[in-house]
Amino acid sequence: MKAYVHVMLKDGVLDPQGKAIGQALQGLGFAEVGDVRAGKVIELDVAEGTDKKRIEDMCEKLLANTVIENYRVEIA
Amino acid sequence: MKAYVHVMLKDGVLDPQGKAIGQALQGLGFAEVGDVRAGKVIELDVAEGTDKKRIEDMCEKLLANTVIENYRVEIA
Repeated sequence: MKAYVHVMLKDGVLDPQGKAIGQALQGLGFAEVGDVRAGKVIELDVAEGTDKKRIEDMCEKLLANTVIENYRVEIA
Repeated sequence: MKAYVHVMLKDGVLDPQGKAIGQALQGLGFAEVGDVRAGKVIELDVAEGTDKKRIEDMCEKLLANTVIENYRVEIA
């Protein structure tokens, strides 16, 4: 089965990548774009029946830096 | 309103970042993890009523490299 982990910087943490994307879009004429935040998505192929708790363990230990990032686990 | 753009490498395109994550997880004892793919998610704050087509234009022009990446737009 597939698990998707979404990792985003916490609100209030400066996101230079997002800022750069926003400015580039403005420069290309996409004036309707305001704030932009960039994050990661990690698609994991895990053994059938793997517990969500187990995926959250992976996030805590490796996938997210919980000091500055939030994560969200989605099982599909 | 918010738009979310998910950018993933196309199937068949080598993903060294995903591979590294997979091996690190294995090394930490998460044996249930198989293939891992890493991608990006870009959260855009866009003007109310912005057309999905317009976000797709942004993807084609800047956000995704359509030679090697697929993108998916989600409006929330």
